[in-house]
Amino acid sequence: MLYFASDYQEGAHPAVLRALVETNLEHTAGYGEDPYCESAREKIRRACLCPEAAVYFLVGGTQTNATVIDALLRSYEGVVAAETGHIATHEAGAIEFGGHKVLTLPGRDGKLDPGDLRTYLEANRADGNRDHMVHPALVYLSQPTELGTLYSLAELTEIHTICRDFGLRLYVDGARLSYALASGENDVTLGDLCRLTDVFYIGGTKCGALLGEAVVARDPGVLDHFFPIIKQHGALLAKGRVLGVQFDALFTGGLYESIGRTAVAAADRIRAALRTAGIPQAFVCSTNQVFPLLEDARAEALQRQVAASFWEKPDPAHTILRLAASWATTEEEVAALERAIAELGVRSEELGVRS
Amino acid sequence: MLYFASDYQEGAHPAVLRALVETNLEHTAGYGEDPYCESAREKIRRACLCPEAAVYFLVGGTQTNATVIDALLRSYEGVVAAETGHIATHEAGAIEFGGHKVLTLPGRDGKLDPGDLRTYLEANRADGNRDHMVHPALVYLSQPTELGTLYSLAELTEIHTICRDFGLRLYVDGARLSYALASGENDVTLGDLCRLTDVFYIGGTKCGALLGEAVVARDPGVLDHFFPIIKQHGALLAKGRVLGVQFDALFTGGLYESIGRTAVAAADRIRAALRTAGIPQAFVCSTNQVFPLLEDARAEALQRQVAASFWEKPDPAHTILRLAASWATTEEEVAALERAIAELGVRSEELGVRS
Amino acid sequence: MLYFASDYQEGAHPAVLRALVETNLEHTAGYGEDPYCESAREKIRRACLCPEAAVYFLVGGTQTNATVIDALLRSYEGVVAAETGHIATHEAGAIEFGGHKVLTLPGRDGKLDPGDLRTYLEANRADGNRDHMVHPALVYLSQPTELGTLYSLAELTEIHTICRDFGLRLYVDGARLSYALASGENDVTLGDLCRLTDVFYIGGTKCGALLGEAVVARDPGVLDHFFPIIKQHGALLAKGRVLGVQFDALFTGGLYESIGRTAVAAADRIRAALRTAGIPQAFVCSTNQVFPLLEDARAEALQRQVAASFWEKPDPAHTILRLAASWATTEEEVAALERAIAELGVRSEELGVRS
Amino acid sequence: MLYFASDYQEGAHPAVLRALVETNLEHTAGYGEDPYCESAREKIRRACLCPEAAVYFLVGGTQTNATVIDALLRSYEGVVAAETGHIATHEAGAIEFGGHKVLTLPGRDGKLDPGDLRTYLEANRADGNRDHMVHPALVYLSQPTELGTLYSLAELTEIHTICRDFGLRLYVDGARLSYALASGENDVTLGDLCRLTDVFYIGGTKCGALLGEAVVARDPGVLDHFFPIIKQHGALLAKGRVLGVQFDALFTGGLYESIGRTAVAAADRIRAALRTAGIPQAFVCSTNQVFPLLEDARAEALQRQVAASFWEKPDPAHTILRLAASWATTEEEVAALERAIAELGVRSEELGVRS
Repeated sequence: MLYFASDYQEGAHPAVLRALVETNLEHTAGYGEDPYCESAREKIRRACLCPEAAVYFLVGGTQTNATVIDALLRSYEGVVAAETGHIATHEAGAIEFGGHKVLTLPGRDGKLDPGDLRTYLEANRADGNRDHMVHPALVYLSQPTELGTLYSLAELTEIHTICRDFGLRLYVDGARLSYALASGENDVTLGDLCRLTDVFYIGGTKCGALLGEAVVARDPGVLDHFFPIIKQHGALLAKGRVLGVQFDALFTGGLYESIGRTAVAAADRIRAALRTAGIPQAFVCSTNQVFPLLEDARAEALQRQVAASFWEKPDPAHTILRLAASWATTEEEVAALERAIAELGVRSEELGVRS
Repeated sequence: MLYFASDYQEGAHPAVLRALVETNLEHTAGYGEDPYCESAREKIRRACLCPEAAVYFLVGGTQTNATVIDALLRSYEGVVAAETGHIATHEAGAIEFGGHKVLTLPGRDGKLDPGDLRTYLEANRADGNRDHMVHPALVYLSQPTELGTLYSLAELTEIHTICRDFGLRLYVDGARLSYALASGENDVTLGDLCRLTDVFYIGGTKCGALLGEAVVARDPGVLDHFFPIIKQHGALLAKGRVLGVQFDALFTGGLYESIGRTAVAAADRIRAALRTAGIPQAFVCSTNQVFPLLEDARAEALQRQVAASFWEKPDPAHTILRLAASWATTEEEVAALERAIAELGVRSEELGVRS
Repeated sequence: MLYFASDYQEGAHPAVLRALVETNLEHTAGYGEDPYCESAREKIRRACLCPEAAVYFLVGGTQTNATVIDALLRSYEGVVAAETGHIATHEAGAIEFGGHKVLTLPGRDGKLDPGDLRTYLEANRADGNRDHMVHPALVYLSQPTELGTLYSLAELTEIHTICRDFGLRLYVDGARLSYALASGENDVTLGDLCRLTDVFYIGGTKCGALLGEAVVARDPGVLDHFFPIIKQHGALLAKGRVLGVQFDALFTGGLYESIGRTAVAAADRIRAALRTAGIPQAFVCSTNQVFPLLEDARAEALQRQVAASFWEKPDPAHTILRLAASWATTEEEVAALERAIAELGVRSEELGVRS
Repeated sequence: MLYFASDYQEGAHPAVLRALVETNLEHTAGYGEDPYCESAREKIRRACLCPEAAVYFLVGGTQTNATVIDALLRSYEGVVAAETGHIATHEAGAIEFGGHKVLTLPGRDGKLDPGDLRTYLEANRADGNRDHMVHPALVYLSQPTELGTLYSLAELTEIHTICRDFGLRLYVDGARLSYALASGENDVTLGDLCRLTDVFYIGGTKCGALLGEAVVARDPGVLDHFFPIIKQHGALLAKGRVLGVQFDALFTGGLYESIGRTAVAAADRIRAALRTAGIPQAFVCSTNQVFPLLEDARAEALQRQVAASFWEKPDPAHTILRLAASWATTEEEVAALERAIAELGVRSEELGVRS
């Protein structure tokens, strides 16, 4: 079996694991007040070109989104997201558990459209019933999005400007950020993210760590009293250094970026193999995820050889699968997947697929 | 000025107020344990043909929705509503404050479409990520809807069946229920509502009371421990008899239905006047609300004579207004509004309105 | 039967009811934007000597406490109260429902002791685990307390000073405030309350209104965006003028104070009758509540004639009852109660009560 | 410096870390559906003598408490704990964030007294205002307690019986459970815990894991739908096998118990050294924590050599410190600490300590 079902199927990148092993018996303070957390914070600040930024380490993505969003909003305020945004779909109501509405806009290729956002905020501002409605106070983006697409620097800048104009804050979920940074199409750097958002997070879990996400706020005051808020959300790790050690390793020698490059190169090869085989992709993306759109028989054939994620059925006869490459994907695995895809193209007739 | 801006611009129906005055100095127990609450409960049970039903009195609509929905859901469960549903738009996030997501479907004329609901629930049941998503566990309808439209008995029965098939509960918001009951097009009785829903509420605030809503549950066990839940939501009135006395009066001598008939008759005349004047209506409805769609100049002209609610601008050149009749609307007011509408029709040319 | 079980057994003071009747058919805007609410706000500002104060009308006490406290606290902050405080005991967890801990101190005669408060806050400030604990950010007092006792101006000033020193806010629950203002022992005016608190509320429900509480904030900024918060808590009354009309009447011609004086005079006579009969009182108080401490047989004998509230059993042989006078208590009722108490004193032997 | 400040200062026990290293590059499903989680669940069920028990893995202690308690309670219900209980003090309001009140009883040596509990529940049952109060529905214990003390089997059985009698559930926090199991005074086994509680958790973070807690419910139905609840609380680890691998190692070859024995043996030697030196202990306990009560000068002297936790100042002249041994404590460290303590005893005079 070839494993492309997700980017969190393995443990940690070997360099990350090595750092955990090497520091294992040292005695340190708990709750993120150890030298490894401090060193990781400093390296992240440098990578973000934000020497004053606040950096906090949390455990997982849904937890990070719920904790940050709750910290940024007052009770009657809501967060604006694309309909496909992770907080709007796959967090089991974690944002609502904190008391906040996710205000959704349709989205285009998984992205919030700046024009749609401005139109929505103008209509909201003009609405005489405004005070009977949830106040939009924060914009949530994911980079890359849940569909593997990317915001360009121009788009991010425009959304930043809209947020400033309407008095909203901007938060970016970077669960798979290493794969955005490594994409050939990407023109948004860590420095841009830090400069253009109020808060964003650098994903560890899906990008080489066992677990962990690094929250970055350009202006520390925006996350005022974040420590007790983290604790109250059950998101404070007693052995905080487990997170610090890992992020310290990820931000040593450019590992975080190189992890992404391997995966994106693999995904690029998969995308090329699909094009060669005449298999369309559901979303045009350039990061570590690939979304082949297949007749059901072909989808089944592929899944006999490859562990992939079922994404959705766009119609009764077709299936969209998700193939995810990661830092752990090997040359051999990609080559085998290329062969499997090529065969799929060839065997169309046997499978009874209409061209 | 003619007052048609809303159905909560006046105090209480004279018979309701009289009951408050007559009982004012009696001594009774608090918190709804007085004889007037008991009498009102009994009359409501009879009107609903549900001798075993539980009946609770709360103060206002948003409060009732938030309290009932919170009582019916576990933390990870959500409530399905039409996009135009009051809980989805105009309750300032009260449902989310209780921790629950409002799962919206597009709706048709303000109504949840049974086919759409079934499709949504089937897709949800089949979704492999189901446990990462909010569980739909309750359906919210309003009768009449926020657009003044009505569910037919056939539609309500179909939604009831879908809820049963998928293990959801059904809750109906009857903030303006007297106006549904009085509509010529209506074929859903209080008995049907009690029989086909798990919980529904009979609106008082907009239907002749100073304030107050009566929550009805066919099976009392569905609202198990509702008393402390009401208290915890700040919805328990110390002088509960203020609610009991009013509902007792509203359910004496068929007052609740007759209140609706006056208002619907007035609205029917307003609808006829609009048709005569060639003015279209944004939503086809048969209850106490009327939604003329006017060129902006005509909308302004009408608003110089009539206090109406701005509803929305469907395009830059037009405005939808809402005219609401109530139990307090007089023959003279309707006649004057008819004249104002007739004039609007005549003066189209002056107003520069294209036909 | 004589009715002394509570101060919310009747409807509204006749002058308040008359105002509701006289204004009943007027058309006004909803949600507290009517002229009666505005007039009542202005009269309350004048009575509080705070021309700039924000005034909001809510429906009930628990609702008001939950809404105000939630508005004043961030998620990780808590409110300090005496163990006997209403929010700590009899609100079914309404404060916790909003996510906040009630941090209790023992209290003396139902009052938070300034010295205890300072000691607690100093210990909290020094605690190295502070950020793992709920931050005390607000102090809750009730005036009069749940035991009918009063804070003196000196005590209130000292607590105000402590709050300022430690960066906490001060909130006073005035559910029975008219009875504090009318007490012969009271030296705290409405002006003092407005000046020394951040927010307090003037109780209507127990002081002559059908329902309603008036929230006052010296600095309107302290209750920033309170309107959507009220709505979100289900505490916004559609027919807001029902509250405005009542408070307008209560603050016309000194009615709010005179309502209290009748009740306190009645309570003073009851206290005198108890002393004459040799019956001790559980709490030394000077407002409208009286707490006789009786042998069980005597308590039962009294309750055969008088509807009183069971308060608690301090030991297996004794019972504390609560007798509450109100604006509705009549001369005849007090005289009858005096006789009943006198008889109790005389009949000790028959009842088998040991002296 | 000697490190006795806490039992979470190091990484993982070498055997646990080794398991993580050995499995690192395997491909497994996420969210706890991998073979390591399944194997660990099975081993835990066996160790608990509960073949039908449900076992879930969460990340940290506060998170586990908040998620389990929220799953077990309806909104108006609260959890009863000793005043020193972790949920009552050091979780930054995580339980209240979920909407629930922690109902505290004084506690004796950090333990809830069965007699006090019964008295409290009887009084609550008899209280006429019960429905205006938070309903006690769950009892929280910690084993060992925050003060290092232990419930005996007799005590646990009695509390179990009281819970059954009054319809409450019983939950035990085992953050440091390995140290209870290893104590010479302990007579409560894993099997007893599983049999006598509704839910309990086996602590990993403080007992040899990098992070992780294992929640056990004898009757899986008690934690009905716990998966989406975990997700909604941000407590679902994407790479769930990180927890499974660790607990699998901890429950292989009796590691979990042997980890505790090393630490308790060390703590016993520290306790003996204190007794020899004439230094009293604040709490009489037999697990891995030791609480010397020292004159301030001696406390400072000890802290110059030993990293200890400040616990509290029982009076202005004395300090209670906490010394915690763990699986990582070495023979050399204990011997050095014994010497440091012995010196303290000898040098009393130099330190100006009155005998």
